[in-house]
Amino acid sequence: MAKQERAIRTRRAILEAAGAVFDEHGYASTTISMVLERAEVTKGALYFHFPSKESLAQAVLDEQVPFGAVPPHPCKLQEIVDMSFVYGRRLMSNPLLQGSVRLTVDQATPPGVDHSGPFRQWADHVVELLEEAEKQGELLPTVVPRETVELLVGSFAGIQLMSRALTGREDLGHRLSVLWAHVLPSIAVPGLLGRLDTAPDRGARILAMLEEDEELMQRAEP
Amino acid sequence: MAKQERAIRTRRAILEAAGAVFDEHGYASTTISMVLERAEVTKGALYFHFPSKESLAQAVLDEQVPFGAVPPHPCKLQEIVDMSFVYGRRLMSNPLLQGSVRLTVDQATPPGVDHSGPFRQWADHVVELLEEAEKQGELLPTVVPRETVELLVGSFAGIQLMSRALTGREDLGHRLSVLWAHVLPSIAVPGLLGRLDTAPDRGARILAMLEEDEELMQRAEP
Repeated sequence: MAKQERAIRTRRAILEAAGAVFDEHGYASTTISMVLERAEVTKGALYFHFPSKESLAQAVLDEQVPFGAVPPHPCKLQEIVDMSFVYGRRLMSNPLLQGSVRLTVDQATPPGVDHSGPFRQWADHVVELLEEAEKQGELLPTVVPRETVELLVGSFAGIQLMSRALTGREDLGHRLSVLWAHVLPSIAVPGLLGRLDTAPDRGARILAMLEEDEELMQRAEP
Repeated sequence: MAKQERAIRTRRAILEAAGAVFDEHGYASTTISMVLERAEVTKGALYFHFPSKESLAQAVLDEQVPFGAVPPHPCKLQEIVDMSFVYGRRLMSNPLLQGSVRLTVDQATPPGVDHSGPFRQWADHVVELLEEAEKQGELLPTVVPRETVELLVGSFAGIQLMSRALTGREDLGHRLSVLWAHVLPSIAVPGLLGRLDTAPDRGARILAMLEEDEELMQRAEP
């Protein structure tokens, strides 16, 4: 393995361990030694990548938005819907993402850590998509993209929190489906409404498809 | 002051101090001594009312839903809307409520403290109101009261969180107004829609009215 590739893997292993520990213990109670033990890396390797607990928390926070990655869809509203379901699905099982979300919603992070960053990053990212949807004629003329997007981002944050508190996030897909059923009629043009897929298992189906594609790609390799 | 009244005041002073300390430090980092210092009561008085940090946290959590109290309204959907704005407004300035909300959204509370209680209590409380609205013919036939209510409760939790992270809750009224503009068309019968007051300052206006009423009552006392 090349030196650079090894460094990338080590960094990732540390981030994943840190996410899991932050999720279980919160920012204040997490110590570097807990992360070291979980990641099974040397102290030197950890400090090489992350000089402090703050920088580790910031890196975990910065990993959040990429978890919303989904295949592009010709209908940009569907792509936004897909993002919510895929992200929700990943949140059910990925400890790095769970830790990142806990750091976002907890008020415990010190001033040096921008725990509100993911709110802003999510909003900026989805506003771009919703403006594309607007250009394609998918939106009602009353929609103000930034307002709608900040509502969706805020609502998502609370819905996953409530789902976590009541069912360990088991019913998150269903709750997202209810969200979309309530807000889409105020966002999408009527002709589009009935054609958007907002079923609770949307996220699971997209992820299964992505995995199949990956297997096919691997088999095609020489 | 009668003995019982003094006990009630002491209990309240402890709860308010605890709320403020929990809001600032979170559950894990809060100590009984911090609360003692803030409340300016004796250790004996505190332990008389709350035998442990867990019981103190539980009592702070149990205080949450009463902060949504609003004057009854003939239109039950308006009463639910009012509740959200008044509660949001109180959340901007009341340390006990702020602490209670932090305990609800933080994952840090130990198994002995039911931090998901407020989610359930809110849902049960608002479902009752929404079922009254249903009986009065205020709702579209497609509405499933519990689903709609859990969406509203979850969304509120996240919206206040995002508002707190980005503006110290300064824009919470505006964000609630955006929420209602998006979901009411999927909830209310068309004839009611245009008549509901969902302006960002709705909470401030109701609270001002309540204060005026209280002043009038006090002046009328012999």
